[in-house]
Amino acid sequence: MNLLHTAAPAVDASCCVPSDKPVLGSEEAQRKALVFKALADPNRLRLLSIVRAEESGESCVCDLTEPLDLGQPTVSHHLKILVEAGILHREKRGTWAYYSLVPGVMDDIAGILSAL
Amino acid sequence: MNLLHTAAPAVDASCCVPSDKPVLGSEEAQRKALVFKALADPNRLRLLSIVRAEESGESCVCDLTEPLDLGQPTVSHHLKILVEAGILHREKRGTWAYYSLVPGVMDDIAGILSAL
Repeated sequence: MNLLHTAAPAVDASCCVPSDKPVLGSEEAQRKALVFKALADPNRLRLLSIVRAEESGESCVCDLTEPLDLGQPTVSHHLKILVEAGILHREKRGTWAYYSLVPGVMDDIAGILSAL
Repeated sequence: MNLLHTAAPAVDASCCVPSDKPVLGSEEAQRKALVFKALADPNRLRLLSIVRAEESGESCVCDLTEPLDLGQPTVSHHLKILVEAGILHREKRGTWAYYSLVPGVMDDIAGILSAL
C-alpha cells in the first residue's frame, strides 16, 4: 500500500487543491537544464576554474590538458560542451584555440536560479 | 595529424608554460558537480519552480505530481535527488511529505559559481 496515495486526514484536505500558480514551462526547463548539465561534471568545473584564474582572461587549449591529467580529445570534448552551453567562448588564433568565459555568464546562470 | 599537438609558432611559445595557479581540486569538483547534476534535469527544475512559487514556502508531495503529468514514483525519485543534493528539505507530517527550499541554498549555489 502506498501511503502517499491514500486519502489524506481532514487536516490535510486542502493540500491537494490544484495550484493555479505558473509552473516553469517544459521547453524553458529543458533549455535551462542544458546549462546545468554542462556544469554537472567535475572535469568541466575544473576547466572553468583554470580559465577563470587566468589573468589574461583566456586559456590556450594547450594549457588545459596537463593540469587535469586528461587526454587532449577528452579535454576538447568537455570544452565543446561548455561552448555549446554558452558558458565559454572559443577563438582560434593560428595553431591554437583560446577559451574565455562568456562575459556575464556566471551572473546569467545565477539569474536562472533566482528566476526558477 | 592533430594540429593541437604540433609545435606552436614562435609567437605562441609562451602559451604552454605550465601555470602555477591553483586548480579546483578533484574531490571538491566532484562535490560541486553533484549540486549541478541535481539541477541538470528539466523536471527537477520544474519541481523547484513549484516549491518556490508556494506562498507557504512548502509543497505537499501530492501537489507536485499533477502539474508535471508524471507518476508519483518518478516525482519522488526526482525529489529524493534534490534532497540528497541539499537543495530541498523534506518533512513528513502525518500522511504527507512536505518539501521546502533549504534556506539560502540558491545563494550558496551562486556562490559555488562565483568561487570557481
